[in-house]
Amino acid sequence: MNAEILAVGTELLMGQIANTNAQYISGRLPEVGVYVYYHSVVGDNPERLKEALKLALSRSDVVVMTGGLGPTKDDLTKETVAESFNRKLVLDNESLESIKGYFKKVGRTMVDSNIKQAYMPEGCIILKNERGTAPGCIIEDNGKTVIMLPGPPSEMKPMFDDVLNYFAQKSSHRLVSKFLRIFGVGESLLEEKIMDLIENQTNPTIAPYAKEGEVTLRVTANCSNNEDPEAILAPTINEIKRRIGESVYSTEDKNLEDVVGELLIENNLTISLAESCTGGLISAVLTDIPGISAVFNRGIVCYSNEAKVANCNVNNDTLLKYGAVSRGTAIEMAKGIRINAGTDIGLSVTGIAGPGGGAESKPVGLVYIALADKDNVWCEEFVFAGNRRRVRNNSVLNALDMIRRYIMKRISINNCI
Amino acid sequence: MNAEILAVGTELLMGQIANTNAQYISGRLPEVGVYVYYHSVVGDNPERLKEALKLALSRSDVVVMTGGLGPTKDDLTKETVAESFNRKLVLDNESLESIKGYFKKVGRTMVDSNIKQAYMPEGCIILKNERGTAPGCIIEDNGKTVIMLPGPPSEMKPMFDDVLNYFAQKSSHRLVSKFLRIFGVGESLLEEKIMDLIENQTNPTIAPYAKEGEVTLRVTANCSNNEDPEAILAPTINEIKRRIGESVYSTEDKNLEDVVGELLIENNLTISLAESCTGGLISAVLTDIPGISAVFNRGIVCYSNEAKVANCNVNNDTLLKYGAVSRGTAIEMAKGIRINAGTDIGLSVTGIAGPGGGAESKPVGLVYIALADKDNVWCEEFVFAGNRRRVRNNSVLNALDMIRRYIMKRISINNCI
Repeated sequence: MNAEILAVGTELLMGQIANTNAQYISGRLPEVGVYVYYHSVVGDNPERLKEALKLALSRSDVVVMTGGLGPTKDDLTKETVAESFNRKLVLDNESLESIKGYFKKVGRTMVDSNIKQAYMPEGCIILKNERGTAPGCIIEDNGKTVIMLPGPPSEMKPMFDDVLNYFAQKSSHRLVSKFLRIFGVGESLLEEKIMDLIENQTNPTIAPYAKEGEVTLRVTANCSNNEDPEAILAPTINEIKRRIGESVYSTEDKNLEDVVGELLIENNLTISLAESCTGGLISAVLTDIPGISAVFNRGIVCYSNEAKVANCNVNNDTLLKYGAVSRGTAIEMAKGIRINAGTDIGLSVTGIAGPGGGAESKPVGLVYIALADKDNVWCEEFVFAGNRRRVRNNSVLNALDMIRRYIMKRISINNCI
Repeated sequence: MNAEILAVGTELLMGQIANTNAQYISGRLPEVGVYVYYHSVVGDNPERLKEALKLALSRSDVVVMTGGLGPTKDDLTKETVAESFNRKLVLDNESLESIKGYFKKVGRTMVDSNIKQAYMPEGCIILKNERGTAPGCIIEDNGKTVIMLPGPPSEMKPMFDDVLNYFAQKSSHRLVSKFLRIFGVGESLLEEKIMDLIENQTNPTIAPYAKEGEVTLRVTANCSNNEDPEAILAPTINEIKRRIGESVYSTEDKNLEDVVGELLIENNLTISLAESCTGGLISAVLTDIPGISAVFNRGIVCYSNEAKVANCNVNNDTLLKYGAVSRGTAIEMAKGIRINAGTDIGLSVTGIAGPGGGAESKPVGLVYIALADKDNVWCEEFVFAGNRRRVRNNSVLNALDMIRRYIMKRISINNCI
């Protein structure tokens, strides 16, 4: 089956938001054998919405609409769809109760206009909204399927699981993708290493996608419902892993921070951080992981020299002689925070994120990352290109990867003993 | 003039990337009197691309195409446009030289397929690409304008300035928007306060847009080239500000963190942070601001109780008696970090971000935020709804807003004395 995603909302046409719903839905529909051929966006305009729906129905089996389910008179998605299928909108009491319940839960007063949100096209399948007021729905008519979902991603995404379940029950064929996340190998070197695999494979297919600092390989199996996708995917994935080695940090499309958080928690390794140029970003991503408090002791954002001395035991002499951005300072920060916090690992970052603060001997982008355990300390020097955001982001990723490689090495040594 | 943005690229239909180009272009075209009515996306498929272009030309004056200008045989944008206007592709020597120059600059070897990128539709206006190999171009034909731009945003954006210049020379009319950013007033209360303005205005128009925790009002003037947009916008903006008061934190579409950072820097107020449940997020957003090092001394991510005691002088008794998530602990954290860092302001956050750690007396979402200066300390209690990410994000925004309101009050008191 082929699908079109039709987003409704003037805020998209004004550039206030990006159509991330289309991205999310496009990424997930192939799981149930539905392939997206078109995205369209129209504003909250009844005529253009009607035409866009007509066009979508003429060229696609499935039309997934997002937005336009709100309480105001500008919100016209259900009205337009119901009209084009000659259906009435009828009050759904269960939806009304659920809207009332939502307002009660969040402690706000329901206004009359919200009642409109409980009027649904006759004979539709209703999709409950646990995170907001607008229910979604599915209409099947004349060989076509129209799915209406709310615009806010936080409401749309949980509801989309119900949509996938709906299709899974119907489909005979599907694409299953695994995402190999890779850090520390450039895109061109990676392509060189696996070019023959990319060129010669038909099922699974392999598609590389680079984003700042890392590369993801999408490996996709095309299989019927009685085939095991794992059996199609495994040989290729194993071959890639054999060639790329430990730079493959996830085959489950996990983020680097989640992989590192899990490694810390599983191995019960406590950690403390001393961050200068990353300004708390590493703490922020690690503490975003539920359960991390078992191993994350503290982080110090030691932006000033006084903080480096007071909280991380850096010597004033080191700062005077080598400067705040130096191998010596990074090493003392990592050692100092580890001792003060009494953790297994101490990690530090100090660098020049720019735009100001650079010099010929120490350019913008120069970053030192150090990791200390009770016996040793390691320090790496980097010079990152790009603006402040990129330098900080690259620093975070490389710091996380340093923790990951440290733990992996530790595990493999322990396994050898 | 009305426009359609037609993106070409299977990676969009696979959900690998969001169509941020469409957002960027949509946000900027109104500056030159071109209004976007449609977005469309098709894959690298010649038939569907041809149809999509035909449709776009039938309903829009201007078609802005992104993507499909690469060197591979999948890249078909220029070929498809040239064909539909009965034009040939001809080698443009200047573009070829510029592609060669680009490869030389980045130290890579040019391959034969890149020569294809220098073949341009006859009679087009060529748009130079300073950041990559694919030149863009503009075709004017039969009352329609088709603009072809490369897909990578880093190449498209600089080129888009040339597109705006192209239109600016032609247009007699434009939309100018101001964005009022508002924090601390819910969307419904806000609508109530300005409903009559929204309903009765035609020029400027007012459109509210809510995102997590805050509301943006877009105020848009429709003006001819010899009208001053400020004169149309100012009376409405001033009336909104009169009704909403200090909850309007920016009329320049600035982020809350940037407003707070500027207030700290302009007023030379030094600050230190003690973050528990926000885990370094507030430090991370503040240190993202260039120049913040003049006032940002340090942040402590005191996740463990030991860190709260060691780095923020919290009393063990307080922790035992009231717990880590309590008004008393928040107050001691703010006071302690301020004294240890020797800053004008100390700010603390402690709370339960979830999903675990909640109890009946202290539910997930309970957060205390405290601000101390040398004379006083203030503490506010919040109970935020939603998941871990939302609790943390709301905590960050409310902490930033507490700093903002503190500084605003300080300024107004100083002005009165």
